[in-house]
This record gives sequence, C-alpha cells and structure tokens, in this order.
Amino acid sequence: MKRDFLHITDFETNEINEILDLAIEIKTKLKNKENYKPFQNHSLAMVFAKPSARTRVSFETGFFRLGGHALYLGPNDIGIGKREAVKDIGRVLSGYNDMIMARLFEHKHMLELAKYSSVPVINGLTDFNHPCQIMADILTIYEKRGNLDNLKIAYVGDGNNIVHSWLNLATRLSFHFTCICPEGYEPDEDLLNLVNNSKISTAEISHDPIKGVLEADVIYTDVWASMGQKEEAKEREEIFKNFQVNANMINSTGKETLFMHCLPAERGREVTDKVIESSNSIVFDQAENRMHAQNAIMVKISQGL
Amino acid sequence: MKRDFLHITDFETNEINEILDLAIEIKTKLKNKENYKPFQNHSLAMVFAKPSARTRVSFETGFFRLGGHALYLGPNDIGIGKREAVKDIGRVLSGYNDMIMARLFEHKHMLELAKYSSVPVINGLTDFNHPCQIMADILTIYEKRGNLDNLKIAYVGDGNNIVHSWLNLATRLSFHFTCICPEGYEPDEDLLNLVNNSKISTAEISHDPIKGVLEADVIYTDVWASMGQKEEAKEREEIFKNFQVNANMINSTGKETLFMHCLPAERGREVTDKVIESSNSIVFDQAENRMHAQNAIMVKISQGL
Amino acid sequence: MKRDFLHITDFETNEINEILDLAIEIKTKLKNKENYKPFQNHSLAMVFAKPSARTRVSFETGFFRLGGHALYLGPNDIGIGKREAVKDIGRVLSGYNDMIMARLFEHKHMLELAKYSSVPVINGLTDFNHPCQIMADILTIYEKRGNLDNLKIAYVGDGNNIVHSWLNLATRLSFHFTCICPEGYEPDEDLLNLVNNSKISTAEISHDPIKGVLEADVIYTDVWASMGQKEEAKEREEIFKNFQVNANMINSTGKETLFMHCLPAERGREVTDKVIESSNSIVFDQAENRMHAQNAIMVKISQGL
Repeated sequence: MKRDFLHITDFETNEINEILDLAIEIKTKLKNKENYKPFQNHSLAMVFAKPSARTRVSFETGFFRLGGHALYLGPNDIGIGKREAVKDIGRVLSGYNDMIMARLFEHKHMLELAKYSSVPVINGLTDFNHPCQIMADILTIYEKRGNLDNLKIAYVGDGNNIVHSWLNLATRLSFHFTCICPEGYEPDEDLLNLVNNSKISTAEISHDPIKGVLEADVIYTDVWASMGQKEEAKEREEIFKNFQVNANMINSTGKETLFMHCLPAERGREVTDKVIESSNSIVFDQAENRMHAQNAIMVKISQGL
Repeated sequence: MKRDFLHITDFETNEINEILDLAIEIKTKLKNKENYKPFQNHSLAMVFAKPSARTRVSFETGFFRLGGHALYLGPNDIGIGKREAVKDIGRVLSGYNDMIMARLFEHKHMLELAKYSSVPVINGLTDFNHPCQIMADILTIYEKRGNLDNLKIAYVGDGNNIVHSWLNLATRLSFHFTCICPEGYEPDEDLLNLVNNSKISTAEISHDPIKGVLEADVIYTDVWASMGQKEEAKEREEIFKNFQVNANMINSTGKETLFMHCLPAERGREVTDKVIESSNSIVFDQAENRMHAQNAIMVKISQGL
Repeated sequence: MKRDFLHITDFETNEINEILDLAIEIKTKLKNKENYKPFQNHSLAMVFAKPSARTRVSFETGFFRLGGHALYLGPNDIGIGKREAVKDIGRVLSGYNDMIMARLFEHKHMLELAKYSSVPVINGLTDFNHPCQIMADILTIYEKRGNLDNLKIAYVGDGNNIVHSWLNLATRLSFHFTCICPEGYEPDEDLLNLVNNSKISTAEISHDPIKGVLEADVIYTDVWASMGQKEEAKEREEIFKNFQVNANMINSTGKETLFMHCLPAERGREVTDKVIESSNSIVFDQAENRMHAQNAIMVKISQGL
C-alpha cells in the first residue's frame, strides 16, 4: 500500500527517529559524492501553487542526487483546483510519475490530492502545516546539540503553519514548546491540547516576548506576513513590533541559544541583520537540511507501510 | 535524413502499426523499471507557446525514462515568432539538442520550425492538429478492445484539431468516424473528403447527438472552448448544450461504449461527473498513454527514414 | 579554494588558451556521444533575473551532457535582491548545489553573489559584461580561421556589455578591436585604456561605419536596444540607423569578412536578413559554441585554483 507524508503525525515516534538517522546517513553519502541511487528511473512531479526557492531546489536537487528526475510544475503549468479538478491532477500525475510533492494553499486540496493519487504524496507546504520544514529543523538541532534532551523551543511570531507542525512533532518527540505571539495570533487550540494530553511534550502560549524566551535552547521565527497575507503586511508590522528577534532577546534567555528561521528572512522586521549573521544563527544549515530530511522521508515512504 | 512527426499522415500504415507495437513494448519495459536507455546523452528541447500539463509531463518524464534530458521552455523563455524568428529558433535549438517538441498556436510556425531544424521535430499540438494525442488514443482503444476491428468512433463537440488528427488517422487505419457537432463547427472538409476517397475508412458529419452516437464503440469529447477561444466560452455553452456527454447519451448507443476525453475536462459542461467517473471512462489510461505513444514515436523517428 | 568566472580577466592568458583547447576537446567528445561525465552527481543552480533562451539551453544541455543536473530558476522562482537578500541566496544555493550560474541585471549583485557563495559562480550576463559569450565568440573565430593571427574585430553598434568583455579579452589575447558606435554610446573608457596600456592588443573607438570596418576580419553586432532599454527602442532606431550591418558594409572591408551576432537578431534593424543568411554569417556556430565554451569554463573552474 502506498504511503503519504502529509503531517508529521503520519509517522510514529520510532519512524521519525529512523528518518533522522537515515537523513544523516544519506547526507554523508551525498557529501562524499557516493553513487547512491534508490530512485534510479524514478520521477517526482513537483506541483507548486506558489513558487518557492528552497522547497523547489531542495527537492529537485535531492531527488536528482538519489538517481531520479524531478519535474517542476509551477502555477502557470497546472491550475490545481481551478483549470483542472484536484482529483484529475492526482490521477493523471500518478500515471506518469512515481511520487508527487505539492506546495498548495488549501490543506483540503492536499488531502484530496493524496486520496486520488495512486503514488505517494508529500506535503511541501499548505496554509495549515509544513511538515518537511520541521523535520529539517529537528534534524538540524539534533546535529548541533548531539542530542534532543531537555530541549526548549521558543517560537516567536505568528502561530502559523510552522507552529502547527512543531505541535505535531511534540506528540512524537519530547520537548517543551512555547509559542510567543500577539493576542489573536495563536495556533490551532486542538493541536495544542493534543500535545499536552500526549504526556510526551508540553506546549504553551505566551504573549510576553521577554518571559517567553527564558531558558530557550532555540529561538525560532518566521516572516510576520506569510502566504497570502502580504496585503496585511503594514498592519501586522505594528502588531508584531515587540516580537522582533534581536540581540537583546537572544541575550535574555540565560543560555547559549540557537537562532532558527525557515527563510526567506526580512531583515529589520522579524529578525535583525545582526542576529541572522551571528554565530548563534544556524539558518543556512537548517536550509541545507531541507534536502537531507526530505531525501530520508522520500526513501522511507517509497518503501511503503 | 532526419524525420519529423508533424501529422499522422507523415507515417504509412505499416509504420503506425509498428509504433503501436513499440509503444506496448516500451510501456512494459518502463512498468518493470528496466534500464532501457535509447536516448542516453540525448536532449529534447520542449517549446511551449502555451503551457500544458499532460504534454509537458508526458514528454519530460518519458524522455527521462528513455535515458535523456528534456528541457522545458515556456512562453516566457522563448518568444517564438515574436522575440525571435521561427527559423532562428529552429537552427539555434538544433545546435544544442537532439530533438525538438513544440506546442504552438500556428501550424505554419510548426512547419517552418521543422524546415529549419536539422534535428527531428515533433508536433505537440497546434491550432490545426494534435497527432500525438490521437496516437495515444488509438493505442488505448487497442489495449482495451484487444483489436481495432469494426471500430466506430463518435466524436461529440467542436470539429477542432483533435478531429483533424482523427481524420488523418482514418486514412491509415480502418474505422468509421462520426463528428457530431453543431452547425458551423464542422472540421476541415478537405480532410473529411480525403478519408472517404481513401477507401480505408468512412467519415461523416452529424448534427444530431442521439442518432450520431448510435452503435458507437467510443464516444469522445473535448472542451467546448479550447485554445484561444476562452472569450467565446459563454456563447459556445449555449450552442453546444445539447452536445453534452451524459449517462443518457452513453446508454443510447445500443452497445457497451467507452468514454474518452483528452483532458482537462470541465465537468457539467461537455461531460458530466458521472460519465467521467464511470467504469466506461478510460480517460486516465488515455492520459497515461500519451507518454507511451510518444516514447514510441520518438524512438521511431530517431531511427531516421 | 573555489574559483569564479565573473570576468574574462579572472583568467590569465595561458588559462584562456587552455579553455579554448579544452572546449574543442569536449565538443568532439559530445559530437561522438562519448560518455564523458566530469559532473556526475553534480548540480548547477541557474538563476535568471530575466529569461534567456541561449544562456538557458546552452547551460542546461551542456551540464546534462557532462553528467550533472542544471536547475532553472526564473524571475518568478527567485526574487534576487528583492524577495530575498543576494547574500542569503548565495549561501542557500551553495548548500544544495555544486555550482551557480546567474544572469542578473546589476553587476554588483553578481559580485555579492560570488562573495557569499561557497561554490563557484559563473556570470551568465550582467548589464556590465558577458564573458561566456565572448569566450564562445573567440572559440568560433579560432575554429573558422584555424588561428587568431593578425585578427581585426569590428564591433558595430552600442558600446555595451558585449564590448566590455571584448575589451577584457583584448588584455589576454592579441588582436585589434574597433568599436564603431554613435557618439554617446561608447564603452567604458577605463576598460579601453587598459587594453592600450597592456601592449597586448590595440583598441579604438570610431563613429564612422565605413572607415571603421576597413580590413575587418569580423563584423560583430548586437541589438540596438538591449537589456532594459526597450522603452528607448524608437529613439535608438533613429540614432543607430547608419550603423546597420548590410551587404554594402560587409563588402566594403576589402577582405573576406565573417559576420557575428550574439542573437536574438532583429532583422531589418541592426542587420539585414541577407547578411545574417549569407555564407559569411557564422551566427549559428557561434550560438552552438556557447555550450562548448561554457562546458570548458565549468570544467576548468571546478578544478579550483
């Protein structure tokens, strides 16, 4: 039976640990330019309802390095749910390709695409979640710290799709997660409750940027106005102004704290140039690990259930 | 000498039969993930004056599976006949690539491109014809029926480029073809006469959807407003409303009738959701066979005359 | 240490000669469809701030033929210096890929991209220069003449980025270069002085199309309104009208003169259809040699210093 990766919770704890180990193993092979070709003669259709540099390059290069060919289908190539029904696109692409990766606006379209595709579907981002990104993030933290013990993550900013995938991960791996956001910008409450009911991790909301980041091992942020919110950008700039990650915030944790950002960053808004360029910043390792985490996910799901 | 595939009539009957056999043979190899690489170290330039999901993915994945690399050149990448003369594009692309596939608006540009290219040119669609689609269609019918004996095709809709290639095919293989369309939407009369003069097939025009589809083995339709006709969409919806393929039409043939559509479909217009989702519908096999038919065509023409 | 190719002067004379020899050697291998794969398992990110047919196809096909995969990132995929800081793009792409080729508007962005990328960067065109084109041009002249002895180049048109790279080449290889342009359209004076101070070549400006081309072995032109100047097109048509390359000009050199153009050409403006289609014209060899010159450049710089 085919297997999709639409949410981090599609995997059990042991599978997530296996993927992290596999990612490190494949990363080493690639650095050594080894001929490791699990996807020889395989093709991956990449459907983008909106262009994205990192998602595009990490999947296209990663799939090539594993022996296959990834096709870039941009917003002008496929009008998913507009020019053509989602269910038709899933069935047509399944006839040509061995796997589908999609970056869509609506999460329900992702679910429908997976339902009608006979090949594995990977969620490369929706307005609801971003599971590949958070798999890359936890891989990066694991590499930098050597372990995930007693981990405290402070996310500062909008309670968006990034936060939803962190909350999902918190029901699989153990850590403390704080979402520090303005009132009205909290993440989905059900996902938060699932974490605290899981007895695996703890999660909380804070509206106080100074108290919220205390003892954080990682401060993570994202742009204030993301997918489809560019028109609200000015209003959000006022609302989020006290939530900027700057040197003062990084220095107030009482710990040596790593800085993470899923990029692209808007310097001077959600983060200062000084912080993103500092030795605490691991944003480019994090970006590179998109490829390695995704490679492991693709290898894992291509093996089926 | 190089060989192009611009019209179905560029091939003789025996060659078309060879291509159908070859398509089935290569399809089997690909399903088995065999290492069959006739296009190793070869590149295919794909020129699209207008984006197209099926044409793009079927050629790009197909050429990759046969060992080569296909380059997607969209409307913004090459301004064929606008930013650059057709004859220059043909000569420049021939210097880099081993084959050219083009999807253009004007058929005369296709002819000029082929004339000036020193490598084989494949017609991926023009406003006049669509030979690759109809090769995929006849392959699909052959697979489903096991033979092409006493075949009756009823095309319901606009007498467009799809119909022109069906009429071309009718001068090579034997079947009965009816184009059931509103008055004023008939296909090219010369092509129709060529069929009836060929003594190979018979072709006729009907304006009566009920009588026209009687005894049809296949009912085939296409969107009512295709390439460049989107502005006429509303007017056409009124004119074509009695030409919708619905359960009633399918059930009125007096036979077990297959439903075909070159996709994308506009459910509720030229076809109902019920028909396209029914067991009579072979539209996704037909879409997949674009790749297999085209692979066979590319292998065939790369062997020259 | 990594090595970039941003200007022709990034290479010494002996290295340029080595590249020309290497280009001819690789070209032969490719014509014979040899399995020559120096870039096996390598990927090249191609960043285009503006689409370009020749640059795109020559790099993508060339890199594929050498065993690697080239990713096309168009203006909608990466907003270099707009959606994302140049320095971030350089670092992110370096994490996924082995080499970067960029076609940008601003030369300072090219310099910044190279500074922040940990992998080699190749200049595929800026508003200041076009080194890959001129390497292809001199390769083509070398192939046609068999040597570069006593070479006289007459460039007729705007003193643009093409001219700047010719002037750079003139400080490495020996020839006489005349830029024949309307007053006010001269190339960078410092680059011109560098040539004449080098004692390697001689360079001059002329405003007289008839005298300027006397004894020229090559007449070279480019569109009158290039990158970002399309709004000035009408004004320039008047200013440049006496600088058209036509049969009369070609016949007035007193020699058998080759015609070159970096394409796309606007027939009837900077060159007549008769000249570009004549036996003197080597514009399509020149276009093809983009691929072979660039292949040699990529192989050379991937070997480091």
